[in-house]
Amino acid sequence: MTERNLTMLTDFYEFTMANGYFEKGMGNRRAYFDMFFRRVPDGGGYAIMAGVEQLISYFKNLRFTEEDIAYLRRRKCFSEAFLNYLRDFKFECDVWAVPEGTPVFPGEPLVTVAGPMIQAQFVETMVLLTVNHQTLIATKANRITRAAQGRTVLEFGSRRAQGYDGAIYGARATFIGGCQGTACVLADRDHGIPAGGTMAHSWVQMFDSEYEAFKAYAEIYPDNCVFLVDTYNVLKSGVPNAIRVAKELAEKGIRAKGIRLDSGDIAYLSVEARKMLNDAGFSDMQIMASNSLDEYLVRDLIVQGAQIDSFGIGERLITSKSEPVFGGVYKLAAVENEDGEIIPKIKVSENVEKITTPHFKQVYRLFDNKTGKALGDVLTIHDEVIDPALPYVLFHPIHTWKQRVVTDYTVRPLRQQIFKNGECIYQSPSITEIRDYCMREVDTLWDQIKRFENPQTYFVDLSKKLWTCKNELLESCRI
Amino acid sequence: MTERNLTMLTDFYEFTMANGYFEKGMGNRRAYFDMFFRRVPDGGGYAIMAGVEQLISYFKNLRFTEEDIAYLRRRKCFSEAFLNYLRDFKFECDVWAVPEGTPVFPGEPLVTVAGPMIQAQFVETMVLLTVNHQTLIATKANRITRAAQGRTVLEFGSRRAQGYDGAIYGARATFIGGCQGTACVLADRDHGIPAGGTMAHSWVQMFDSEYEAFKAYAEIYPDNCVFLVDTYNVLKSGVPNAIRVAKELAEKGIRAKGIRLDSGDIAYLSVEARKMLNDAGFSDMQIMASNSLDEYLVRDLIVQGAQIDSFGIGERLITSKSEPVFGGVYKLAAVENEDGEIIPKIKVSENVEKITTPHFKQVYRLFDNKTGKALGDVLTIHDEVIDPALPYVLFHPIHTWKQRVVTDYTVRPLRQQIFKNGECIYQSPSITEIRDYCMREVDTLWDQIKRFENPQTYFVDLSKKLWTCKNELLESCRI
Repeated sequence: MTERNLTMLTDFYEFTMANGYFEKGMGNRRAYFDMFFRRVPDGGGYAIMAGVEQLISYFKNLRFTEEDIAYLRRRKCFSEAFLNYLRDFKFECDVWAVPEGTPVFPGEPLVTVAGPMIQAQFVETMVLLTVNHQTLIATKANRITRAAQGRTVLEFGSRRAQGYDGAIYGARATFIGGCQGTACVLADRDHGIPAGGTMAHSWVQMFDSEYEAFKAYAEIYPDNCVFLVDTYNVLKSGVPNAIRVAKELAEKGIRAKGIRLDSGDIAYLSVEARKMLNDAGFSDMQIMASNSLDEYLVRDLIVQGAQIDSFGIGERLITSKSEPVFGGVYKLAAVENEDGEIIPKIKVSENVEKITTPHFKQVYRLFDNKTGKALGDVLTIHDEVIDPALPYVLFHPIHTWKQRVVTDYTVRPLRQQIFKNGECIYQSPSITEIRDYCMREVDTLWDQIKRFENPQTYFVDLSKKLWTCKNELLESCRI
Repeated sequence: MTERNLTMLTDFYEFTMANGYFEKGMGNRRAYFDMFFRRVPDGGGYAIMAGVEQLISYFKNLRFTEEDIAYLRRRKCFSEAFLNYLRDFKFECDVWAVPEGTPVFPGEPLVTVAGPMIQAQFVETMVLLTVNHQTLIATKANRITRAAQGRTVLEFGSRRAQGYDGAIYGARATFIGGCQGTACVLADRDHGIPAGGTMAHSWVQMFDSEYEAFKAYAEIYPDNCVFLVDTYNVLKSGVPNAIRVAKELAEKGIRAKGIRLDSGDIAYLSVEARKMLNDAGFSDMQIMASNSLDEYLVRDLIVQGAQIDSFGIGERLITSKSEPVFGGVYKLAAVENEDGEIIPKIKVSENVEKITTPHFKQVYRLFDNKTGKALGDVLTIHDEVIDPALPYVLFHPIHTWKQRVVTDYTVRPLRQQIFKNGECIYQSPSITEIRDYCMREVDTLWDQIKRFENPQTYFVDLSKKLWTCKNELLESCRI
């Protein structure tokens, strides 16, 4: 796979600001930016972090080609000195990120970029684009796979994805979130997401009869027969023909794998098809369903007793159709003054939810030692340490009288440093490791956090010190 | 720009079927596939075709690398003879497509691929992915720009796009649909979509005061000052500071361009800001608004008398948030027998809307000579000709008694052949030409087709000959 240089995939104002900082001699002042989000899509209780590996690739490949410089010069608003700076650009930032597969919550910094203002600002668009997209899709995949209650869920949506990367990295994100595989070949070749698939309706139509189509398929792929049974009529034609060919295979000692339903009343058809398969001695043949499904339809099908062993999920997963935007933002948290002192910065807003949490921060997750469950996350100032030998007071950042003292807990920094002075110091785990880690971490959440509707709000609190810093800044910036 | 080889961006079943046709000796039978859609997103009256240029690039770059072959071999389900075929793959299909920017309607073939079955089937995923994505976004852009009633609309959504191509080709599609520009630099560098932008809130926060931030910006970009006025307080601080700096510029004979509102009650704030700017002698300064807008909010703002000159539209445009899926499908329409005779194929379904229109077809659009307005589209068998010298009977394909005889009309084939025997024979117009063409073509639609809610259904009829063919096939495939 050739790595793409996506340096120019940025908003134009990143360049006008970069040139502006450069011209004002401010470019090298150290700034701290946080990427965070404010709401979980679909009203869910948590999101699943994804996209870090692609973010790393972006940072590693940050450089401006002569073609880029020429383009910028044609725009006639950038100084030659600035263009020379870009020609010799060297990424020098520190970056921290929550590892992929981690359940994450509103208000916590998923990514922090610290470095020369000119650089830390510039990468905004790609940090957001990369993490927003994959986190959105991983989160949706986690909802759908939870609804399937252990049944296999495969991603089938390439043809309805929003662009090529929507399909490729979307498939990657669905695997992180819990899908077992994809139909997307490129996602397999380049990212190791297992790809599979058998036949379309057109295969069945190409032959003189459905039976001949199934038979031809079985001759070529005897070990991988999943027959698409709804081209003509599922119960009158599709399933009987599948059984006929399965019997022919069985005579050779080969078991057909299953059938796929792609239209009609899946609940009813799957129950009837199951009976027909069982009666014919094929209780081992699986039934796969695929027809504009999402977590709600999967849940309903299971409640209705549908006999489905695996789900193929297309457009509603690959676009997160019910909520196709993950609203991550990238905000200034602090700058350093000439003495290297960190000056926290806040962005106020008439909309209270839009007020940022200032300062260069650390994020800790606390786990209850008895149950292994996550108790809550705490944002602190960067150099604060939580000592698990001591009781810790969690308190609500607005209704501060809501307090809880936790004891017998383990504390874990939620983020890892991935770049140090522009050098990558982090090795991404394999995609399977990420997925396994995700499953384990989701298991640390209480069930009430995992409900589809009206989940409990997970605690994301501030340390006393950070809370005080924020409130002092709020007081000081009254207009 | 380096062209990407997206040959492997396909569903796995395209390979199992291709290998199957190859093994069965059927690969070279000529097949005809249509790409069409069934519903306009958002309940609209028409969609805007887009993505043809990228489709052409895909077809031109269709080839399998040794890495691809090695990957497929590892999958252990493809014959060496088939892998050799892929190694020597040469695209040999004929392709017809509706030109980009054309208003299109449910049921009409937007793309037809005719050629060796093994090839015409294989390209399914990318035909759908490419056209579905860009057509979705161009259609949304056309809705939003219509709502803006001539005001400038700019695309600002890269950070919330679904993947990198979602941002890049999304920006391209929004321009085709009617936007005047984008924030996405890469879309400008590679596709000529004019990119612009000025400052983020972080710029304002980086300086000791809002006034100093605006002043610094004006020193560097005196000719391009659009001040972001909502970092602290729009009316008490942002607009007064913008006016102060605009006055300083005016003393040097330079006019500031405007202000941008990105939060709060845009309707109220824009009216108050307009008064303040006018009272200060800056009636020429424009007001730009950007805050999770879409066609409904833009329409409401205008109805409420908001004083907005241009709109920056982000996530709700770049993802088509209210309906993020364009449901195009790719279906077999015909195959040729050994004698080269075209045998029409139909896909039946219990869902009447899902029944396909068989045969290798032509699409005509009829225009009324008096008004210049489009009267309707007619699908015919490929070699039928409509003679505008004769009256033409349009009839409803289901309620056939609904008929209309048209006279004094012009007829135009809606599609162009873009590939002939695998060679590209079509030169894409420039992006500006496509956009201008789109504006002209949308003007040929009656207003009742263009309503946001409950638009009139545009006629997409079948010729008598095609209607008869379809109904005979339907009769014959009763089970």
